[in-house]
Amino acid sequence: MAEHEADVAVVGAGFAGIVAARELQRKGIDVVVLEARDRVGGRVLNEPIGDGKVVEVGGQWVGPGQDRLYALAREVGVETYPTHSEGENLIEFRGALKRYKGTIPRINAAVLADVGQAQAKLDRLAKRVDVEAPWRTPDAERLDSQTFWSWMRRNVYTPGGRMLIELSIEAVWAAEPADVSLLHVLFYIASAGNFDLLVDTGGGAQQDRFVGGSQLVAMKAAEDLGDRLVLDAPVRRIVHRGSTVSVIADNATAWCKRVVVAVPPPLAGRIAYDPPLPGHRDQLTQRMPMGAVIKCMAIYDEPFWRRDGLSGQATSDVGPAKIVFDNSPPDGSPGVLLGFLEGKRAREYTRAGEAERRDAVVGTFARLFGPKAAKPERYLDKSWIEEEWTRGCYGCYLPTGGWTSYGDAIKAPIGRIHWAGTETASIWMGYIDGAIRSGERVAAEVATALQTSSASRAGSAV
Amino acid sequence: MAEHEADVAVVGAGFAGIVAARELQRKGIDVVVLEARDRVGGRVLNEPIGDGKVVEVGGQWVGPGQDRLYALAREVGVETYPTHSEGENLIEFRGALKRYKGTIPRINAAVLADVGQAQAKLDRLAKRVDVEAPWRTPDAERLDSQTFWSWMRRNVYTPGGRMLIELSIEAVWAAEPADVSLLHVLFYIASAGNFDLLVDTGGGAQQDRFVGGSQLVAMKAAEDLGDRLVLDAPVRRIVHRGSTVSVIADNATAWCKRVVVAVPPPLAGRIAYDPPLPGHRDQLTQRMPMGAVIKCMAIYDEPFWRRDGLSGQATSDVGPAKIVFDNSPPDGSPGVLLGFLEGKRAREYTRAGEAERRDAVVGTFARLFGPKAAKPERYLDKSWIEEEWTRGCYGCYLPTGGWTSYGDAIKAPIGRIHWAGTETASIWMGYIDGAIRSGERVAAEVATALQTSSASRAGSAV
Repeated sequence: MAEHEADVAVVGAGFAGIVAARELQRKGIDVVVLEARDRVGGRVLNEPIGDGKVVEVGGQWVGPGQDRLYALAREVGVETYPTHSEGENLIEFRGALKRYKGTIPRINAAVLADVGQAQAKLDRLAKRVDVEAPWRTPDAERLDSQTFWSWMRRNVYTPGGRMLIELSIEAVWAAEPADVSLLHVLFYIASAGNFDLLVDTGGGAQQDRFVGGSQLVAMKAAEDLGDRLVLDAPVRRIVHRGSTVSVIADNATAWCKRVVVAVPPPLAGRIAYDPPLPGHRDQLTQRMPMGAVIKCMAIYDEPFWRRDGLSGQATSDVGPAKIVFDNSPPDGSPGVLLGFLEGKRAREYTRAGEAERRDAVVGTFARLFGPKAAKPERYLDKSWIEEEWTRGCYGCYLPTGGWTSYGDAIKAPIGRIHWAGTETASIWMGYIDGAIRSGERVAAEVATALQTSSASRAGSAV
Repeated sequence: MAEHEADVAVVGAGFAGIVAARELQRKGIDVVVLEARDRVGGRVLNEPIGDGKVVEVGGQWVGPGQDRLYALAREVGVETYPTHSEGENLIEFRGALKRYKGTIPRINAAVLADVGQAQAKLDRLAKRVDVEAPWRTPDAERLDSQTFWSWMRRNVYTPGGRMLIELSIEAVWAAEPADVSLLHVLFYIASAGNFDLLVDTGGGAQQDRFVGGSQLVAMKAAEDLGDRLVLDAPVRRIVHRGSTVSVIADNATAWCKRVVVAVPPPLAGRIAYDPPLPGHRDQLTQRMPMGAVIKCMAIYDEPFWRRDGLSGQATSDVGPAKIVFDNSPPDGSPGVLLGFLEGKRAREYTRAGEAERRDAVVGTFARLFGPKAAKPERYLDKSWIEEEWTRGCYGCYLPTGGWTSYGDAIKAPIGRIHWAGTETASIWMGYIDGAIRSGERVAAEVATALQTSSASRAGSAV
């Protein structure tokens, strides 16, 4: 059992924890980071595919407005490149497979108009959301009392429009329209900027990728931590009586003045706190479930679809992989198709074996890209639902009633315990960029708290 | 660190755990029960008020249809008596205070007709619910995609009707109409029998009380367990590799063949399982929040309201104690008024100090019952939100999308781990009666599993 002393202990070495720790170090504050896994990056994870190349089985993209992630990557020397978008996209809709250019699929004009008016309405409603305190949004109670499904029934008029909007919900929240509060959807749109920024590739959150894989950014950023990063140390208990906090992990204990818990709220709620946390905070963590997603990839000799004039991007109303991307490395070799199982599909397929998932996903690829897609060299997937130290992805969503009754507990510190993680971010909540912002915010918060308490101790000694 | 060996370990000595353990013992199966607290009863708790008398600060009532609770009380020799209902009830509604007899308040006829038609609709819809598998209910997806708030907006027509129906939701679920799935409300109604059975005093779930307090039933039932009941043993980890399960608590470890986890799902989700539980089960426990309630009582020399011809039962649209009962002991001395802070009021007042709660609740009593009520001899309350080993009351509710996506995981055993607790009950879920039924169900399930595995071992030895 290794023992560590520090000014601040950080629980979790995802982007939030790493950034919090680096920022604190830069202020001359001594930090130790306890991470449950044997690696850094949290929901961001590279998977080697040979020849020194990787694919990302977790979060991977960066796009306009995600300035903190671009800045961190630049700082640690990781370059970006555009998500492969050349060529025509595919849409499988009502039994027909069509090719189209740009972001607007060539389907029924009434459906497109319907989706357009729904997005415009959502953007307009989202403008009224107070991202720092969504519960103070005008009419917050009414917006938080209904599911997005209920809103959609009243405001999207065509079955095709509902299908496409539902697909967007699944793609962004890894949940179904029935699961999420309308206010949460509006908050997320406001937190990103607008609806298109969430769903678009070029010009949106899926615009760019990282050379060497997104986890490389976390790995390089974590280098500054040196031996103050302790791996294989799942934190089980935080004792916060008096002026010293004990952070007790399976294989390590840290003694500190302040602790930053930088894991998703439902996992933060599983740590034993002594004394127990106030009920308001505890009930929050009972109401922030993680979404459900399985990220699936098939690897081919080469990206053969490019020669057919296809971008590799596709949407399908059948699925089960309803959203597909070309996820090949920057040099286009090997060819990688990426399909997402989200929401209901993820809940269903996480219980199936890998073989069944492979058949279903490779089957989708073959339907979209032809028989060559049926015979990948390798198939791999990652069900984040099964990951003990994440328990779902991309992030938490709030069901109805959550923001208005418990939202103020998401980042409010409790004594010497501070909270970070993308779920505490006002801007780009749920994204890597939000995780970084939360790390920066909590580092400033903790530094101020340490100064204040050392100043008051100095004062009382006089 | 005490070590225990048994065929079966039971986690939690609420009604579910106690009944499961007794039933298993009666089948000749060796059981050990690990309880986090220094007492039995879980959400059911007596509070002494002097002269050997008690009031209940947790679950307390029993009514028609709750046959298993009546039977257990009879078996252990605890008598019941009717909830005090003689005299006129009070309703505070839109600034006026009115007295009425029976269950129908004398307010606006249009409001009463509205509530009547809404209840009839709910009862009709509830008849279609499959209580063993609510996700198989016809049209389950649609019913589970909307909040009860959304249903109410379309199906209750008067503001007064909405207020009264909202009050029922708060009283039964300790949550707001915005929080709960319509399908969950319908399931609960079906699970109890009908809407009136949930909300009524005479003829409903609040009909009778227990002489000596409801916890006495648990305490007497637990006597059979003798030294196989281990208190002060919060279970932190369950290792379920191979044929022996290790159940590891702070001050004790039990080695067994099967384990019954008889704590509410969100708390069951906080135990560390090795190997980790399947994601489907884990995500369920992220989606079953506990309700919010604070039970508040004021104690007076005598139940003075009875002399004024009042029953002590009252409802108020102001509150914050919106539902009030005469909770005096069977001999009517001392006089006890009981008020509930539920849903939003509980969320707000659990963060206030006891003094503020006292002022608010005693203030309600004084408004309803006159100046004598303003000066109780004693005030006491219990915020179940703050209880580390319950974390809310009365029970879990399911938000939208919960039953249809995760309902099948509520009681499905995982290897050698079985689940009990009122949240796993098909009949009277959320009530003491449901807890008992779950204990009986799980005992049969575990006994069969033990027989099957010992038979297969005997077979393989041949």
